[in-house]
Amino acid sequence: MKNEELLCLTALNSWKLVIGRFDRNLAALTDEELQKQVAPGKNRLFYLVGHLTAVHDRLFPMLGIGERLHPELDETYITNPDRALPDPLSASDLRKAWAEVNGKLMDAFERFTAADWLEKHAAVSDEDFAKDATRNRLAVVLSRTNHASFHSGQAILAK
Amino acid sequence: MKNEELLCLTALNSWKLVIGRFDRNLAALTDEELQKQVAPGKNRLFYLVGHLTAVHDRLFPMLGIGERLHPELDETYITNPDRALPDPLSASDLRKAWAEVNGKLMDAFERFTAADWLEKHAAVSDEDFAKDATRNRLAVVLSRTNHASFHSGQAILAK
Repeated sequence: MKNEELLCLTALNSWKLVIGRFDRNLAALTDEELQKQVAPGKNRLFYLVGHLTAVHDRLFPMLGIGERLHPELDETYITNPDRALPDPLSASDLRKAWAEVNGKLMDAFERFTAADWLEKHAAVSDEDFAKDATRNRLAVVLSRTNHASFHSGQAILAK
Repeated sequence: MKNEELLCLTALNSWKLVIGRFDRNLAALTDEELQKQVAPGKNRLFYLVGHLTAVHDRLFPMLGIGERLHPELDETYITNPDRALPDPLSASDLRKAWAEVNGKLMDAFERFTAADWLEKHAAVSDEDFAKDATRNRLAVVLSRTNHASFHSGQAILAK
């Protein structure tokens, strides 16, 4: 395997590990437990799952790999803080949305070549990308991997 | 720049972003605030800084880039949970150790070529590495980036 392919595979493994761990923790929680807050007065687990689902769903247009599946989640789980609005979907529908979004992302990522990973993402201008070629799709996915890890660290506190 | 170099630079940026953000949050905290717990009964910020410093210090032998700087932190911040043992160093010495360890790691990472990133790390056997070449130095650093993000998400709750 070429160096560039191996580097991409290593980075993709990092995303897979973080999402896989989150999947397993989520599967171990009952719908009632999803209502727990990570600490007194902080976000509920339900909110964190909604937030990560919405943020990951935004990757489809940002990486140019398709239409969004769940734009209806943004208002509740990105624009507003927890408990400002009622949850727009049931725990079971939220679990489905989470799995659907991440499953479809994984299908796309697994088909990316090194050149695909190094393409510009939609949130950077041609001019800025010409100055800094690290503002590519890989940078976005590594950033979302860290973001998911960040909230995983919080979610674990609810145990 | 070659694809393989650009991929490495993108991944290194991810580490830099996470460590840089932690640095700024740490600098904004007083020594007294470091004694705060991230949530009732959970780890103190002081413990998290000690833990991340010790875990990052272990990267020197694991990546084959030098001797450890602070092996004396393991007993308190890796082997034992928070408050089991007294802190072996002052807040100011802990801040110094954190900066020293991450500064020296960054110097090494910035000199890595793509081939260097793809070398085997010390915690995997030759046999296992032959079967799975993604068990390389990049995988370790991405894993530590996620680990630092995980605890950063907890640390932010103490605000």
